[in-house]
Amino acid sequence: MPKQERSARTRRTLLLAAARSFVQHGYTATTLSNICTETGVTSGGFYFHFAGKAAVAEAVVSSAARTLHRTARLARTGQPLPLQALIDTSHALAQVIRQDAVVQGSLRLADDRHRTFPRNAVTQWQDLIRHLLHRAAQEGALLPHAAPGELATTITATTRGVEVMGRHDPAWLAPATLTTLWGVLLPRLATADQLRLLNPAGTDAVDRAAAGALSVHGPPQDEPETDFQPFPPERAHRPNSWDG
Amino acid sequence: MPKQERSARTRRTLLLAAARSFVQHGYTATTLSNICTETGVTSGGFYFHFAGKAAVAEAVVSSAARTLHRTARLARTGQPLPLQALIDTSHALAQVIRQDAVVQGSLRLADDRHRTFPRNAVTQWQDLIRHLLHRAAQEGALLPHAAPGELATTITATTRGVEVMGRHDPAWLAPATLTTLWGVLLPRLATADQLRLLNPAGTDAVDRAAAGALSVHGPPQDEPETDFQPFPPERAHRPNSWDG
Repeated sequence: MPKQERSARTRRTLLLAAARSFVQHGYTATTLSNICTETGVTSGGFYFHFAGKAAVAEAVVSSAARTLHRTARLARTGQPLPLQALIDTSHALAQVIRQDAVVQGSLRLADDRHRTFPRNAVTQWQDLIRHLLHRAAQEGALLPHAAPGELATTITATTRGVEVMGRHDPAWLAPATLTTLWGVLLPRLATADQLRLLNPAGTDAVDRAAAGALSVHGPPQDEPETDFQPFPPERAHRPNSWDG
Repeated sequence: MPKQERSARTRRTLLLAAARSFVQHGYTATTLSNICTETGVTSGGFYFHFAGKAAVAEAVVSSAARTLHRTARLARTGQPLPLQALIDTSHALAQVIRQDAVVQGSLRLADDRHRTFPRNAVTQWQDLIRHLLHRAAQEGALLPHAAPGELATTITATTRGVEVMGRHDPAWLAPATLTTLWGVLLPRLATADQLRLLNPAGTDAVDRAAAGALSVHGPPQDEPETDFQPFPPERAHRPNSWDG
């Protein structure tokens, strides 16, 4: 294996082990010695890749932000209906959360109240919901008197609840649960005409988006990571907004 | 101060300090030495009340379960409409979560995936939602074709999301947010006749329930705790179901 590729794999292995530990134990209780023992990497090897625990946590957050951003972008590419784009994005994000340990680690870090990591994943999802609902309103897809801001609050809370419930019971993140939720919510927001065009179970874009986003960050044994490009430092905390 | 009362106060002080540390740092990162330093209680004093960290965490969970159970019971006592009982209970629980550090600590413990504490608060709230929606269905208060199970899933996710979002931004737990959410959800589940009887902002029972539940577990400086009765050990993990 070329040296550069091996180095990228070690970095990814450390990133995954750190993410799993953040999920399991939280940020504070995670130690470098845990990560090194878990991966068989020496502490010298760890420090070659990361300056310390805060740096590896930052890398987890950046990598997850990139995966989520890519998922959200792929899920709505070519979808003309903003409400279907919202449905598809929710399904694709759930699939990525179910499958990607780095994303799970990042979401857990976002919960650690004493940390100052920007809560990108949550706030950008919230922004995207608002953006798509306002577009739906402009296009006349929402029921008269529907308040996009209030609907955005409801959808934000509901999907956030699904994510958190899914940490203990993966069934919450299964497609069927989201389909049920959209089945309940959509008739409260979309016009009857619009409703006939929408699929609460998501379109083909869902699997395509999740697969596309995960292929870049897949587990090291599945594929080489030659195209793994972390954010340049100045962008680490400010990935493109999801509604861009 | 009588010796027994002083002892109860010390116990409560330790319980509060432990709960705050669980919220701030999680279970794993909380140490007895933190709790003792924070409270000025010696480790001997700590061990007089609790056998260790697991024991104080269990006491936090039991005490919070009691507060939440009491809140849920008081909030729906005398309310004949199951949907209003559900609305009032959600508002009262949010108020108690906003105000009670022990309840906050318990909810944070419920998130710690490696712990085996039963997730009473979450599952009992879920059970209560199901119970009240089924009662509403039996009484003809739900729209025809409304599926109580699907509505319960939606309300569980939404309210859980509110709780989690509220950890970073207390505005999510404010009455106005819950009123907005019920304003969005109710027309999707209640008949038009029923809707006219319901107040999404909650009735007078909300403040009464929260005040009643918190008075028992209030901060030590506010009132004596002579009536503080933790669950007997055999009930510690199985408080009465909220829908009892």
